[in-house]
Amino acid sequence: MPVVAAYAAPSEGAALESTTIERREPGPLDVVIDIAFAGICHSDIHTVRGDWGAQRYPLAPGHEIAGIVSAVGSDVTRHAVGDRVGVGCLVNSCRECDACLRGEEQYCTGGSVGTYGAIDRDGTVTQGGYSRQVVVTEDFVVRIPDAIPLDRAAPLLCAGITTFSPLRHWNVGPGSRVAVVGLGGLGHMAVQIAHALGAEVTVLSQSLRKKDDGLRLGADRYLATSDPATFAENKRAFDLILNTVSAPLPLDAYLGTLDTNGTLVSVGAPPEPLSYRAGLLIGGRRSLAGSAIGGIAETQEMLDFCAAHGIAAEIEVIGADGINDAYDRVLASDVRFRFVIDVATI
Amino acid sequence: MPVVAAYAAPSEGAALESTTIERREPGPLDVVIDIAFAGICHSDIHTVRGDWGAQRYPLAPGHEIAGIVSAVGSDVTRHAVGDRVGVGCLVNSCRECDACLRGEEQYCTGGSVGTYGAIDRDGTVTQGGYSRQVVVTEDFVVRIPDAIPLDRAAPLLCAGITTFSPLRHWNVGPGSRVAVVGLGGLGHMAVQIAHALGAEVTVLSQSLRKKDDGLRLGADRYLATSDPATFAENKRAFDLILNTVSAPLPLDAYLGTLDTNGTLVSVGAPPEPLSYRAGLLIGGRRSLAGSAIGGIAETQEMLDFCAAHGIAAEIEVIGADGINDAYDRVLASDVRFRFVIDVATI
Repeated sequence: MPVVAAYAAPSEGAALESTTIERREPGPLDVVIDIAFAGICHSDIHTVRGDWGAQRYPLAPGHEIAGIVSAVGSDVTRHAVGDRVGVGCLVNSCRECDACLRGEEQYCTGGSVGTYGAIDRDGTVTQGGYSRQVVVTEDFVVRIPDAIPLDRAAPLLCAGITTFSPLRHWNVGPGSRVAVVGLGGLGHMAVQIAHALGAEVTVLSQSLRKKDDGLRLGADRYLATSDPATFAENKRAFDLILNTVSAPLPLDAYLGTLDTNGTLVSVGAPPEPLSYRAGLLIGGRRSLAGSAIGGIAETQEMLDFCAAHGIAAEIEVIGADGINDAYDRVLASDVRFRFVIDVATI
Repeated sequence: MPVVAAYAAPSEGAALESTTIERREPGPLDVVIDIAFAGICHSDIHTVRGDWGAQRYPLAPGHEIAGIVSAVGSDVTRHAVGDRVGVGCLVNSCRECDACLRGEEQYCTGGSVGTYGAIDRDGTVTQGGYSRQVVVTEDFVVRIPDAIPLDRAAPLLCAGITTFSPLRHWNVGPGSRVAVVGLGGLGHMAVQIAHALGAEVTVLSQSLRKKDDGLRLGADRYLATSDPATFAENKRAFDLILNTVSAPLPLDAYLGTLDTNGTLVSVGAPPEPLSYRAGLLIGGRRSLAGSAIGGIAETQEMLDFCAAHGIAAEIEVIGADGINDAYDRVLASDVRFRFVIDVATI
């Protein structure tokens, strides 16, 4: 079994450290990727720290992977050595359920396989992108267009698709009035994508601290949710609210800003239950919805869309020895807008 | 001003009693309707008792009205003397907002006018269908097809349209797996309409007490929500859950019975906030939604649909002196499935 350098958490709550992990021998349908960059997603932190349940350690997180194909199995047809490719949150699924057959592998009911900390269909435990190399079945590898630098492409594999998918599913386009809640890793992608889709985009953020960034990224308006006037003056102002914040929102106030037939879709879940008054849904045929990442074909569509519109993540590239500090800064919301690990330093 | 016999609450919390109310002089666009039957809707009780806010008294409720046109204004073109007609929850709207222009008068943002207890656009207070006659602008009067007896048609004007509208909006048809929560006045219409639309219909009711009725009305399955097996054995079993119950539901359990992309739509709102875990929405792109009655054109469509499919309300006709007892029985869920007042007894 190939052994590769990695940065992993040795145990729950411990700092990540330099180590090695095993990768499987490439099979006929596998693609071997030399990883160039790996984004740091908020969920990496929750997972390695055990916030979302017990894990197997050592655990190398990372599901925003960009790199170059260095070898392919004998039956691989979709990728070739030298290709610029990416891997996101999933590395396998059952391929048989209705969701898989629809190309919605993220909703696989037969058991999709997360990129790290999951048991793959061959029984091995997956390890993520904070490592020099990964072996992935070709169907879960996407092409990164030449127009997008690999470092700025990496976060698209999670933050990009997680926001692109609901914007497309709810038919955002010219004439749509979209509010993006939060301008973090996901929010800054949502603003760019919604703007490129032709929508009128408003950022709803706790403060106006990142207002200049938001407007530069394509927002038409930037409003502080700490100001009650934001809610009072924007009744029925939006068709879609895309909530990228995992903290519990006061939903009733936000629902009041949705027009008739509007939807508030969340892509991050707080552990606490949320509450709302049903009358706010009934009075305007409004919906509360959720959305999870996106399918593999849709991820490719997202990358091609970003390339066509000159969109990519705004990043701060760090070395492996900066990962633990970066985690602290992510938790403090001190990042514009995504940390990306230069995997050559691992 | 014409004075007509009515049954009205003289004050908040008081029993309804025989009285008279004034109707406006018919204008050029008005239709005068001799009311034959008026359904008793749960919301009549809440409104006259002040549960939903202070009212003006005396107040004659009733927004499930069926009768015969006895006079028309000089400019009326849509109805003629002798026509069988109905009036539902609305008697006017602004006619200028986006919702009105879309034919969704129920979501009028310029101010729709409820059939009773509301201030009409001319400044008068509206009075409902527990009375011998009503004067309504022709655009808010619908035709009752000959195939539907007037007494069984009356509840369609609220219970029928309130369930028809979401079933149509969420595209229920052959192949749809629909759950109807509650088999009361609304639920028994939802079952019939969903079945006629071609869906596979399951009733989710607290007990199996009304199972025979449910199956007779068109349900394929009838399950007790008091039995935990109902939730355990029906994971992802439904595409749409139509909740006709105003009591707070344990939403998380119900969300688990929705398949990917499924929606739980409520048409009755409890005063208490509802709570749910966002992860249940995200993990299957599920939605929580609400829906209010329906537009006027859609109400006509519903009546024509019911006539074509031999659908009507199942009713118990009562005299005016039975209204107060009927209220107590509605609150005790002791009605199959709608009380209808024979207005000739008022």
